[in-house]
Amino acid sequence: MKVELFYDIVSPYSYLAFEVFCRYRALWDTDLVLRPAFLGGVMKATGNVPPATLPQRAPYLLRDVHRTASFFDVKLGFPSEFPGNTLAAMRLLTVVEREKREKLVDLSRALWQRHWGRDDDIKTPAGLVAGCVEAGIPQAEGEKLVERTGDPAIKEALKAATDEVVARGAFGFPAFFVKPLSRGEGGDGDEMFFGSDRFELLAHMYGLPWRGPKP
Amino acid sequence: MKVELFYDIVSPYSYLAFEVFCRYRALWDTDLVLRPAFLGGVMKATGNVPPATLPQRAPYLLRDVHRTASFFDVKLGFPSEFPGNTLAAMRLLTVVEREKREKLVDLSRALWQRHWGRDDDIKTPAGLVAGCVEAGIPQAEGEKLVERTGDPAIKEALKAATDEVVARGAFGFPAFFVKPLSRGEGGDGDEMFFGSDRFELLAHMYGLPWRGPKP
Repeated sequence: MKVELFYDIVSPYSYLAFEVFCRYRALWDTDLVLRPAFLGGVMKATGNVPPATLPQRAPYLLRDVHRTASFFDVKLGFPSEFPGNTLAAMRLLTVVEREKREKLVDLSRALWQRHWGRDDDIKTPAGLVAGCVEAGIPQAEGEKLVERTGDPAIKEALKAATDEVVARGAFGFPAFFVKPLSRGEGGDGDEMFFGSDRFELLAHMYGLPWRGPKP
Repeated sequence: MKVELFYDIVSPYSYLAFEVFCRYRALWDTDLVLRPAFLGGVMKATGNVPPATLPQRAPYLLRDVHRTASFFDVKLGFPSEFPGNTLAAMRLLTVVEREKREKLVDLSRALWQRHWGRDDDIKTPAGLVAGCVEAGIPQAEGEKLVERTGDPAIKEALKAATDEVVARGAFGFPAFFVKPLSRGEGGDGDEMFFGSDRFELLAHMYGLPWRGPKP
């Protein structure tokens, strides 16, 4: 099946969903298509607000993110700034999506690890280049990729991905769209899921095995 | 372990959580304590709003409720009025919680089936008495229980349960609190969960088996 995963580094539940799809890629015979997009734009377009905005909900979410990450075996702390500004990071991922796709998984994970794992910089060019190096991209090439984030075409591509996911019904991240490949490549048959807690349901719906977050 | 489940008939995900706890009661050796409370009061106290209030989210929620209910094997349609007014129904459950506890499971399920399964009346005394009969309570006794919903002590008890769950951190339903009995009966050690999608996590945290929503 084909899975399009829309995500933003600002979203910890997106990180968990990303790791589960990476782990199940072979077992579920998945064509996993990573779609970096800007969650701030989704929130603005739909009128949604981060769930932690509700004061009574914030402490629960903090607790839930950590116990869920522990269950998923993903290293996750909490950034000192939340929600952080991930616009530059998402532009960098857009560059890599278009120009160095084979590094998109590694760079996404490296940026999540910087931001959520170690509360490290992902806003400045230096922080982003460091993320590239951690993802196995040579420093000089990382610098060139980061430079490209100022390109209007890149800014426009990120905006287009964000507009697209809103048009397809998303109101938050992770949002992913599942389509059995046998149904062909048409726009029909997409099923949208939201969050990192619908994998068992997804597996049930498509007749796939679910062996927990660590298969 | 002891599980206190706070719920309102207005909440379809509460219905799903209720059925899972009923099904796992023996397997998890659970002291399941049903705590009817008024979700409208929780929302008002915390400033929360129903998730379907966000226009972009409403169609997703409708879809998700139905596909999840199908996976959980719970019969669930959609009431013509949503969110419906469940104050009278929750007062009736409060009467039964205090005065006929052995029927609390059956009556909760009967009211959910009326409201979510068949879009049937749970607002008028006649509708509530019909629910009692469906739960195996003789008609005459059902009428007496429904009459008791006007008692100020019952109204106050429902309000007290609602205030209690807010004080314990809830912002929506289902909210449930898990405590391993070995830790004693003190207030410490409670772990709060929200929603019908944290059972696998709960099982992992307490070393219990998870065999899906139909064990």
